[in-house]
Amino acid sequence: MKTVLVTGFAPFGGETVNPSLEAIKPFAGWKTDTYTVETREIPTVFGKAIETLYAAMEDVVPDLVICVGQAGGRPDLSIERVALNVNDARIPDNEGNQPIDTPIVPNGPVGYWSTLPVKAIVHELRRHGIPASVSHTAGTFVCNHVFYGLMHYIAESQRPIRGGFIHIPYLPEQAARHPGQPSMALETVVKGLRIAIDVAFRQEEDIATSEGSIC
Amino acid sequence: MKTVLVTGFAPFGGETVNPSLEAIKPFAGWKTDTYTVETREIPTVFGKAIETLYAAMEDVVPDLVICVGQAGGRPDLSIERVALNVNDARIPDNEGNQPIDTPIVPNGPVGYWSTLPVKAIVHELRRHGIPASVSHTAGTFVCNHVFYGLMHYIAESQRPIRGGFIHIPYLPEQAARHPGQPSMALETVVKGLRIAIDVAFRQEEDIATSEGSIC
Amino acid sequence: MKTVLVTGFAPFGGETVNPSLEAIKPFAGWKTDTYTVETREIPTVFGKAIETLYAAMEDVVPDLVICVGQAGGRPDLSIERVALNVNDARIPDNEGNQPIDTPIVPNGPVGYWSTLPVKAIVHELRRHGIPASVSHTAGTFVCNHVFYGLMHYIAESQRPIRGGFIHIPYLPEQAARHPGQPSMALETVVKGLRIAIDVAFRQEEDIATSEGSIC
Amino acid sequence: MKTVLVTGFAPFGGETVNPSLEAIKPFAGWKTDTYTVETREIPTVFGKAIETLYAAMEDVVPDLVICVGQAGGRPDLSIERVALNVNDARIPDNEGNQPIDTPIVPNGPVGYWSTLPVKAIVHELRRHGIPASVSHTAGTFVCNHVFYGLMHYIAESQRPIRGGFIHIPYLPEQAARHPGQPSMALETVVKGLRIAIDVAFRQEEDIATSEGSIC
Repeated sequence: MKTVLVTGFAPFGGETVNPSLEAIKPFAGWKTDTYTVETREIPTVFGKAIETLYAAMEDVVPDLVICVGQAGGRPDLSIERVALNVNDARIPDNEGNQPIDTPIVPNGPVGYWSTLPVKAIVHELRRHGIPASVSHTAGTFVCNHVFYGLMHYIAESQRPIRGGFIHIPYLPEQAARHPGQPSMALETVVKGLRIAIDVAFRQEEDIATSEGSIC
Repeated sequence: MKTVLVTGFAPFGGETVNPSLEAIKPFAGWKTDTYTVETREIPTVFGKAIETLYAAMEDVVPDLVICVGQAGGRPDLSIERVALNVNDARIPDNEGNQPIDTPIVPNGPVGYWSTLPVKAIVHELRRHGIPASVSHTAGTFVCNHVFYGLMHYIAESQRPIRGGFIHIPYLPEQAARHPGQPSMALETVVKGLRIAIDVAFRQEEDIATSEGSIC
Repeated sequence: MKTVLVTGFAPFGGETVNPSLEAIKPFAGWKTDTYTVETREIPTVFGKAIETLYAAMEDVVPDLVICVGQAGGRPDLSIERVALNVNDARIPDNEGNQPIDTPIVPNGPVGYWSTLPVKAIVHELRRHGIPASVSHTAGTFVCNHVFYGLMHYIAESQRPIRGGFIHIPYLPEQAARHPGQPSMALETVVKGLRIAIDVAFRQEEDIATSEGSIC
Repeated sequence: MKTVLVTGFAPFGGETVNPSLEAIKPFAGWKTDTYTVETREIPTVFGKAIETLYAAMEDVVPDLVICVGQAGGRPDLSIERVALNVNDARIPDNEGNQPIDTPIVPNGPVGYWSTLPVKAIVHELRRHGIPASVSHTAGTFVCNHVFYGLMHYIAESQRPIRGGFIHIPYLPEQAARHPGQPSMALETVVKGLRIAIDVAFRQEEDIATSEGSIC
């Protein structure tokens, strides 16, 4: 029996909801024949976000970790490929911190690759009619911060944990207050996350199709 | 008892579905205390589209007509404000016609305003958490063609029919094949059309809030 | 000898420059073998804008009028095809007026077509390496207001004046303060306006190529 | 006397020009009181691109290297912050190679940071009225390939060479063939590259302003 940890973030930036927090709720206590899921809320606060994640990982001892975050303005589920060792906050976090150009892990590597099969996930999401893409930047705010922290933990632990980050669009009710912004229904996001977990468990190697960008 | 006619289009432009056709299906035979709904499929063909609409209007004798069409690339329900008297087809229609700069109604007026309370609809959609906006161009393809035909019929008939056009985004399964394009779940669209019908019946005058664009 | 009137707007919306005003300056007093150009600044104020335009038209007695306006966010020279009889101001004008859903000309027609050869202009601009497109909405602010006023004057006068409206992007120095927005160098805009004037004089009929939009 | 190496790429992807190649031409043999500039064309071919860059670096022995590349669809000068150790070609390069998910340097680090003062450059460009931004992804095509190769060379050499990558928009004549795409005049790009070189020489430390993105 495998264990999955799925995390979402507290609302930030003036929003009253965070789609990532709503999207993980249906997974709480979820069990299939091959895995059980644990969910955790991560505070949108530099430092505390990673501490909370690490406490959850010690508690849950997961085989697979998928952190989920809101990407206002993006139209699809974007499977992040790489985490970067930098904090550069355009807005303050939920406790007023706004680090600029600080490392997440001093002397840590510049970046960590996701260990999810990112292209296989995108391929399977699209096959199920869910808009998805590979992303080459998770930004420089708390999302990337937690993603880097996750991959650093996995690298240091030397355990065969698969880990990665998925950015999701605004919910329709958020986009209704931000005219012109795309959105995705909660049901579509939840269905997509379920597919991502399944693919991550059954697809050892990623598939070799181009999801590159020219620039 | 009032009667509503809601129309959707046949798939076009290489798509196998048209979200407008899917979105009107749940309304077939719909009855409330105050109105009943009739639905019709409109062919995506210049000329025949208007003929089909007119036949439906003679048959149904509606108090309210809402034509719905696909707007690939738009992120929200866009309530069209004006129909223009021009056909200018960027791609051929479903029978290979590609009129360029022809009038829809020779010697007809340049444009017709929607007689829906467009701002009240946008306001109420947003209040229900559904992304929406007022649009000032319905394009120059079969959607605008039908919209103009509808408003011309209403003007000529001198009957107090309310009429207008709503553009809707790609469905998620379409956007999954068009990376980067926004989409909207069918359930959200259907909920939105239901709200638009309700508002059109109960709101005699439109509300005075700006939904203008600078250019 | 023909006479051309070219107008630009005063800066608005917090900007310190208006690219349309900068772009018309080089045309002041311009003479070729076949035409001379007069330029005028139009205040970005509902009502006064049209009054100023009409005074200029009485003064100049032009054969061709091209009104130019700023379209922040657009990437190219957009040749407007139609003016609509509505004011719907998203922001106040330069004297604090913010009309909502008022007609520009009470009982005037819904719209007026540009009498410029819009597609021939777009074609020739592109041939000279200048990004251009046909636009089906000039917005609902002072630009559309002046455009409608211009076409109404021409229609009422029954004189064979050609008239139309061209929207232009931010200047680079404006876009430098609006990260993510496209811009166009002043030299490119000026070159483009010169081409538009030339085409308007030599091309009686517009060309029949599709510049339509699906929605 | 310092030496600068500035590189541009051969046209690719069906284009007949590459703005990066046009933009570096005026710098050929450029001399100021403090530095001289050498320019080189880089083939848009995986592998050969880095070989050509390395040969140029051995030849020129530069103190500063700025590689410039075309970013079709971007509206401004984007100063790249990080190069990633992956090739993932969405289209074939100029010799038909299309590597997917191969490392640029086997066992090389996941990423290298630019050693240009990226924020100081953006700040100074904007101050001079040139649209600019910090970018967190240089894509996964030949641009990122060369950028990673450059930073790897610098890291291995242990010489105090400053190096980085700047993506530039389409030229207007390219955007004229890609309706809807933003562009930048060659003169603006050249002025911007000149400013970038100046800032790179005089600004030892980068400035601490946020140019981060939330996602």
